Amino acid sequence: MGKTYIFGHKNPDTDSIVSSIVMADFEKKLGNSEAIACRLGNINKETEFVLQYTGVKAPELIEDLEDGAEVIMVDTANVAEVIPNLDNVKIKRIVDHHQVLLHTAYPLFYRAEPVGCTETIMYKLYKEYGLEIDKTIATLMLSAIISDTLLFKSPTCTEDDKKAAKELTQIAELDYEVYGMEMLKAGTDLSSFSIEEILNLDAKANEFKGVKAIVAQVNTASIPEVMKMKTELEVGIQKIIAERQLDLFMLLITDIIESNTQTIAMGNRADIVEKAYHVKLEDNTAFLEGVVSRKKQVIPVITENA
Amino acid sequence: MGKTYIFGHKNPDTDSIVSSIVMADFEKKLGNSEAIACRLGNINKETEFVLQYTGVKAPELIEDLEDGAEVIMVDTANVAEVIPNLDNVKIKRIVDHHQVLLHTAYPLFYRAEPVGCTETIMYKLYKEYGLEIDKTIATLMLSAIISDTLLFKSPTCTEDDKKAAKELTQIAELDYEVYGMEMLKAGTDLSSFSIEEILNLDAKANEFKGVKAIVAQVNTASIPEVMKMKTELEVGIQKIIAERQLDLFMLLITDIIESNTQTIAMGNRADIVEKAYHVKLEDNTAFLEGVVSRKKQVIPVITENA
Repeated sequence: MGKTYIFGHKNPDTDSIVSSIVMADFEKKLGNSEAIACRLGNINKETEFVLQYTGVKAPELIEDLEDGAEVIMVDTANVAEVIPNLDNVKIKRIVDHHQVLLHTAYPLFYRAEPVGCTETIMYKLYKEYGLEIDKTIATLMLSAIISDTLLFKSPTCTEDDKKAAKELTQIAELDYEVYGMEMLKAGTDLSSFSIEEILNLDAKANEFKGVKAIVAQVNTASIPEVMKMKTELEVGIQKIIAERQLDLFMLLITDIIESNTQTIAMGNRADIVEKAYHVKLEDNTAFLEGVVSRKKQVIPVITENA
Repeated sequence: MGKTYIFGHKNPDTDSIVSSIVMADFEKKLGNSEAIACRLGNINKETEFVLQYTGVKAPELIEDLEDGAEVIMVDTANVAEVIPNLDNVKIKRIVDHHQVLLHTAYPLFYRAEPVGCTETIMYKLYKEYGLEIDKTIATLMLSAIISDTLLFKSPTCTEDDKKAAKELTQIAELDYEVYGMEMLKAGTDLSSFSIEEILNLDAKANEFKGVKAIVAQVNTASIPEVMKMKTELEVGIQKIIAERQLDLFMLLITDIIESNTQTIAMGNRADIVEKAYHVKLEDNTAFLEGVVSRKKQVIPVITENA
C-alpha cells in the first residue's frame, strides 16, 4: 500500500486541520500505516491553541502532489479549494459537510451530511467501524465542533453535532464551555497579522448570478476593537477588489460572545447587502443582528438578493 | 412535510428501480409518509420479473418536477442522467455507487461507496438506523445486487456486496442461484424490442479526450442468438452515429453465463477498441474474453486508449 495524503481546504480552519489529523488516525486504525495528515495553508491562532493544548503536531504543509497520488479530502468537496491537479490524483475518500463542487471519473467513498462540523461525521464513522476514540482525538474532534458551531450557537449546529459533542466531552474529560470560550478567544487575536492577512484569514470566493464576490470572516470578542482598524481595512478591501476584479467584498466581523456581526461591504454590488438584510450601509458598514454563519446566513441570502 | 420524490437514472436498470422503492420504504420507516418512489423511464424485462415475483408495483413514471420540489437521488449522481431542472429542486439525499457528476449549491446527505450495487449501501443504512428489512424489501435488494454483479461474477462485485447479499438471502428465504439465474435470463429476452430499442436499452453516453462515445450493453444467455441480428444492429448503430455525431458506438453483447462479451464497435474511432483490447475488429466485431463490466472493464480502458 502506498502513501495516502489527507487534506482539507486551503485557508484551513480548525475543522480542516483536525479532520486531517483525525482521518489519519482513522485510516491507521483501519490498517493503513501510510496515511499522512497534510494541510494546504497556515495554522490559525485558534487551531494553534488546540494543537498546543493537545500536544499534537501540525499536519505537514503541502502545495501540490504528484499525479497518481492517493488522497483523502476532508471538510471540502470543492475542486477550487484544494491542490491544483485534483483531476490527476486518485481520491480514495471524501468526508465533508459542504456543497458538492467537484466531478470524479470513478466511483469513490463519499460521505457528506448537512451537519455543523466534519468531526460529527467522523465521530459516526468511528462508531460504525467499531474503532476507539482516545482522549486526544476526542479533544481534537470536540474542538472542531465547538469552532464550527461557535459553541453550539450557530444556526449550522444540528442535534447530531450536539450529540457527538456530548459524548466526546466525556471522553475528553473537559469543561467544554470554559475550554471552548478560551479556544474561540484565542482565535480572535489579530495582533500579529497585517491588514492583508486579516482579510485573507478566512476568505471564501463565490460567484453567483454573474456577481464575483469574496466573503471574509473574522471572529472577535469585541467588534469596536476590530472597527478601530476600519480605515486600513477599507484600503485593503479596495485593493483586493481592484486586483481580483470583484463586484463585492464583504467582511464579516463576528462577535462570538453576543452572536452578532458587523459587516464592511464594498464594491459596485454592495447594494446586495443592503437589500439582503434590509439595512443601509453607512460609510460601508452595517450591523447584522444575529448573523454568525457565513454558510447559512450570508452566502444563500446574498445569492438570493443578487 | 411535503412530498419527496425518489428517482434513479434514466434508462433504469433493476438497481435504479429497486433503489427508489427501497429508499421510499426507508424514508417511510424514518417517518416521512410522503416519500414517493419514481422512475425516469421504462421498466426492463429483468426488473419486470423482479416486480412480478415480489408483487410490488412499479414506481411512478415522471419526466420532470416542479422547481422547489424535494428529491432523493439513488443509483446516480449524474446531472445528465436525471430530470432537466435538477439545479432548481432541493436534493435531500444521494445514495450511489457511481462517479460524482453534479454540483450543488448547498450541503446535503451524500452517501457513495465504490461497491457493486446501491442496495449494498442501502443495506448498511438500514442497519445503521436500526430499521427492519422485511422479506419483500430483502428480495428486491438481493435482486438488484445479483443484477449489478451478474451473480457475484462481475469484477465490480466487492466483499461488501457478498456480505449484504448473504444476509439478505436469509431474510428473503431464497435459493439465490436458481432465482438469480432465472431473473438474469428474463433480462436477456429481446424478442419484443425493435433494433432501435435494443441499442437504447442500457446505453451510456461518454465523452473523453475529445471522443464522443456511446457504450451500450445487452445481456444474453447466447451470443450467437444476438449475433443473428448483426446486420440490423449495424444499420441501427450507423444511424445513431450519424444522428448524434459520435466518434464511437460500442455495443457489448455480454454472455451472463460464461462471462464474456462480443462487441460490435463502429465509428471513426473504432480503432480505440482494437488498441484497448489488443484485438482486430473483423466486420466491426471482436470477442472480449472475460469482459462483463462496462464500468470497470470498458469505460476506463477505452478512455485510457483514446
